[in-house]
Amino acid sequence: MWSVIVESRQKTDARQRMIVSAALLMRERGVEATSFSAVLAHSGAPRGSIYHHFPRGKAQLVEEATRFGGDFIAAGLAAALAEEDPVGAVQRFCQSWRDVLSESDFAAGCPVVAATLEGERTPAAREAAGAAFERWEELLIEAFERHGIAAARAASLATLAIAAIEGAIVVARAQRSSAPLERVMGELEQLTATALAGARP
Amino acid sequence: MWSVIVESRQKTDARQRMIVSAALLMRERGVEATSFSAVLAHSGAPRGSIYHHFPRGKAQLVEEATRFGGDFIAAGLAAALAEEDPVGAVQRFCQSWRDVLSESDFAAGCPVVAATLEGERTPAAREAAGAAFERWEELLIEAFERHGIAAARAASLATLAIAAIEGAIVVARAQRSSAPLERVMGELEQLTATALAGARP
Repeated sequence: MWSVIVESRQKTDARQRMIVSAALLMRERGVEATSFSAVLAHSGAPRGSIYHHFPRGKAQLVEEATRFGGDFIAAGLAAALAEEDPVGAVQRFCQSWRDVLSESDFAAGCPVVAATLEGERTPAAREAAGAAFERWEELLIEAFERHGIAAARAASLATLAIAAIEGAIVVARAQRSSAPLERVMGELEQLTATALAGARP
Repeated sequence: MWSVIVESRQKTDARQRMIVSAALLMRERGVEATSFSAVLAHSGAPRGSIYHHFPRGKAQLVEEATRFGGDFIAAGLAAALAEEDPVGAVQRFCQSWRDVLSESDFAAGCPVVAATLEGERTPAAREAAGAAFERWEELLIEAFERHGIAAARAASLATLAIAAIEGAIVVARAQRSSAPLERVMGELEQLTATALAGARP
């Protein structure tokens, strides 16, 4: 009985480790260069387990890694929004990306962006990416509306924030400097603070 | 004499066609999946010409395609800024990206972003990408300053505009909708108009 549970748990762990490894590798090298071999080496999972865990092959692994990355980032954003007002939460969200950039020496970006860019070849991953962006937008929209910002403005502010942060991560990686992200943080802080100040209380 | 010029010109054309094809393919499928074979098929260039034109191989082709893409986009932005005020120019720049998205059924994005995302594997292309973003930022900074916006604000507004547009292109591709780009256009229009209105005349 226990041996079955342990074995089942080890299988689950190997599967989950592969998903996490795929997301970590995708954010550094893109989808195409994230091979099964690289995922196995990174996760330490046994080679024989690939098609057991991912019967649809690499497309399925990439799709699940995109969903994992999107959920992980959504959880961080939701936690920031639960603890701070929207201005502070957007700043904290930016700071977490600044940490990703500096800790990786500008090698790592966002796995959800990576999934989008090669999306024609992995349509299910691109769909998961679209859903992830929408989830992050929804979290911001809810928070902006809770603070009195009207629905249409809340939506455009949310998309601007997500788009500007994702774009700034790309520019920062290309320029190997966190300055672009810091300039965007400053503009977003001012813009969200002004929108909140002008909203009905 | 003429035959040499004609031959030389044909060589130049094949080289240039390969660069343009590489940029067009990169913006759809990323760097890694843009193989020499795909570039030859797209450009119609003869196979034997690859290492003649690009002695450093694919890394050189990708670097030159990134530079070509960056220059091409800079030329469009400079033309918009020459003909319109910064508010109108940013809107026209966004519209040109909206056309790229709709004409490609959301398959094509920005080749400079693609070069960045797989940058660890093609460092020279990533450097060309960083320089391209910097050139676009400089064009906007010059225009904002010419309209009386102070240097530091001009820089942060310029980075926000470039980052938000590039990010919105990614979100639009993932969601297969131009709505994210349109929401970002609206926010950028309001933000740049407010900054210009508040600047010294």
